[in-house]
Amino acid sequence: MANFKQYRTDFPILDQTVNGEKLVYLDSAATAQRPTPVLNRVMKFYQTDNANVHRGVHTLAERATADYEAARVTVQKFINAAKPEEIIFTKGCTDALNLVAATYGQANIQAGDEIVISIAEHHSNLIPWQQLAKQKGAILKYIGLTDDGELDLADAKQQITDQTKLVAIAHATNVLGTVNPIKELAQITHQHGAVIVVDGAQAVAHMPVDVQALDVDFYAFSGHKMMSPTGIGVLYGKADLLATMPPYQYGGEMIGEVHQQASTWAPIPYKFEAGTQNIAGAVGLAAAIDYLNQIGMTQIAAHEQALVQKLLPQLLSIDQLTVYGPHDPAKHTGVVAFNLTGLHPHDLATALDMEGIAVRAGHHCAQPLMEYLQVTATARASFYLYNTEADVNALVTAIKKAKEFFRIGTGETK
Amino acid sequence: MANFKQYRTDFPILDQTVNGEKLVYLDSAATAQRPTPVLNRVMKFYQTDNANVHRGVHTLAERATADYEAARVTVQKFINAAKPEEIIFTKGCTDALNLVAATYGQANIQAGDEIVISIAEHHSNLIPWQQLAKQKGAILKYIGLTDDGELDLADAKQQITDQTKLVAIAHATNVLGTVNPIKELAQITHQHGAVIVVDGAQAVAHMPVDVQALDVDFYAFSGHKMMSPTGIGVLYGKADLLATMPPYQYGGEMIGEVHQQASTWAPIPYKFEAGTQNIAGAVGLAAAIDYLNQIGMTQIAAHEQALVQKLLPQLLSIDQLTVYGPHDPAKHTGVVAFNLTGLHPHDLATALDMEGIAVRAGHHCAQPLMEYLQVTATARASFYLYNTEADVNALVTAIKKAKEFFRIGTGETK
Repeated sequence: MANFKQYRTDFPILDQTVNGEKLVYLDSAATAQRPTPVLNRVMKFYQTDNANVHRGVHTLAERATADYEAARVTVQKFINAAKPEEIIFTKGCTDALNLVAATYGQANIQAGDEIVISIAEHHSNLIPWQQLAKQKGAILKYIGLTDDGELDLADAKQQITDQTKLVAIAHATNVLGTVNPIKELAQITHQHGAVIVVDGAQAVAHMPVDVQALDVDFYAFSGHKMMSPTGIGVLYGKADLLATMPPYQYGGEMIGEVHQQASTWAPIPYKFEAGTQNIAGAVGLAAAIDYLNQIGMTQIAAHEQALVQKLLPQLLSIDQLTVYGPHDPAKHTGVVAFNLTGLHPHDLATALDMEGIAVRAGHHCAQPLMEYLQVTATARASFYLYNTEADVNALVTAIKKAKEFFRIGTGETK
Repeated sequence: MANFKQYRTDFPILDQTVNGEKLVYLDSAATAQRPTPVLNRVMKFYQTDNANVHRGVHTLAERATADYEAARVTVQKFINAAKPEEIIFTKGCTDALNLVAATYGQANIQAGDEIVISIAEHHSNLIPWQQLAKQKGAILKYIGLTDDGELDLADAKQQITDQTKLVAIAHATNVLGTVNPIKELAQITHQHGAVIVVDGAQAVAHMPVDVQALDVDFYAFSGHKMMSPTGIGVLYGKADLLATMPPYQYGGEMIGEVHQQASTWAPIPYKFEAGTQNIAGAVGLAAAIDYLNQIGMTQIAAHEQALVQKLLPQLLSIDQLTVYGPHDPAKHTGVVAFNLTGLHPHDLATALDMEGIAVRAGHHCAQPLMEYLQVTATARASFYLYNTEADVNALVTAIKKAKEFFRIGTGETK
């Protein structure tokens, strides 16, 4: 197994103190940090090849186009899509999911149709479907969770019926840290003649993903959670589906012919890439994938799993601390949500920040899940390849210190 | 007046040879080159402050949020918007224009209403309105040009009527290099109770822009044409209009409350910023604006004007060369479109590239204009602050050489 400590030097941002303490960054589920090779690749693009793509015959434009299209192939191979044109560059995962709702959804969802999602979805994979259902007079149904916080597959089989036209599910959840059984869900969905849209934001940077093996129809993810520049994301779609969908945005590059009163569209993927895209973002995303591939996605998943194996038993042994999601470390991604009884997670996060530890606190863009869990908010720690066992220990120590400071479980409040 | 040669050292990309010749980059209307201070600012963000914004209480998240919101204020001041919340960060100009069509347009355009644009619009400010009109049963009308290639203001007064609900016009055109009389058009538009949407992509990086003085309702532009990272743009909108518009995309950060079957929205600007935005892009855009402000937009406009004063008479003196747009240099921005009789502009651009000169050739995402001009394509040279008189002379020399090589005007063809 790779020695992950060696990678930390690629992340100069981690080498700083916060509030006088060594920074421990445990917020990668919100955004990852960027390694120097990715930043250098982006710099190099701007300093040697930068031009607008596709539209130019001059040398820089040809180089920039080659860089941009090579990035598409890098993404294709990374998730094992069948063809490069199944990779659409977007602004991010949210943009990608909205694209599917506004094109495939608008064209195919009718009054009375059913859309099925899970109660653990991020708002970005929830509100687009909720609003589409509202607009069309369709029905939005929710798959519930097991007591352990995992997706209830038995319930899924109940909710997904012949009335279902679309199922939208996260690959890995952003609060509970569970991995959903996408392959099984895709089978069930297809048995009923529906399509499945997968929000891969919390998965694709952390584990091997093969869209053909999963047999999903759409798979969306963000670059910034996998160490690319901000402002780039990906929508994978099966070519035959993408080809029949109407465009999302209109502008340069997505056209065939434009006349005063009518237009025709370019083939995929360009039909969905109106205007100048985040060219350097795509180049940076490819550099991030190269970096990940060099380490290996299986190794990264194992590294995060090892950290969770260290963290979870320690957290569970703290009195008055609740962990949301499975208590079995093996069922957990590197995302762990928790609360100390009687302490608002914002106060906990602030106390941890005083120790240099960056965790997130809030509803994590999953308010229906919070309602379901009967909490208003949680704290959340999340790991990535640059985290270490020392980070785990620092977190546990700081939580215990905060617990003592706020006198949690003593019957007193400070 | 500033000595513009001093700025060239900030653009290391310009210091290279292409096909054995010194690079002369005359394609800034497609995308600008980035100065080192902008790239360094973006690097610094990733290396010191990077985190996701708004949602975090930890130190990096607070720093990143401060950086992002400071960028909004920098943009606000740059175009003299009344309030920071009138600045919405988008993926680019195309995204911004599509946002207006899909929200304000969807909510306010009815069957029989009229939308008025000009025949010189870029596809990004044409197809969104064409498709909206189609969908709604509204009427799309075009303002024509004078013989000189300028917007025909008399025709505008004919086309804009009490049936008009929306007027969409470029501030500066991307082929003809003309500046449209936005202030007058806004007055006419408002007299008829309609709103005006301005595509500022070719203007805001090249001249002072004051959205309050122009009294426009919406103003859209891209960062990449003004030296920011790719993947960031801006929609300015008057606060009272933005506040009443429905959201464009759904996801994190744009919500008030989310329940299983209903949601409410955040106030502006957040209602329109679903999901993680291009945070580093916004920071880089602010750095680009700082760079531009240090030079001065009036000085930049004067510099480009001086280059056009050098170029245009020389181009017009070349037999068999047609310049599109005004022949008076004073009426021209730093964008000049031209053709050599009998030579496809792609061949001309390729010949110029052999001399190290980067110009664009094609329909420039303005097919209805090409139809109007009765050409299929043109070559286009475009200037920015880093261009010099030597660049002008190199272009003229290379055009003459190409003309000779292809035996244009000799009655022979090679």
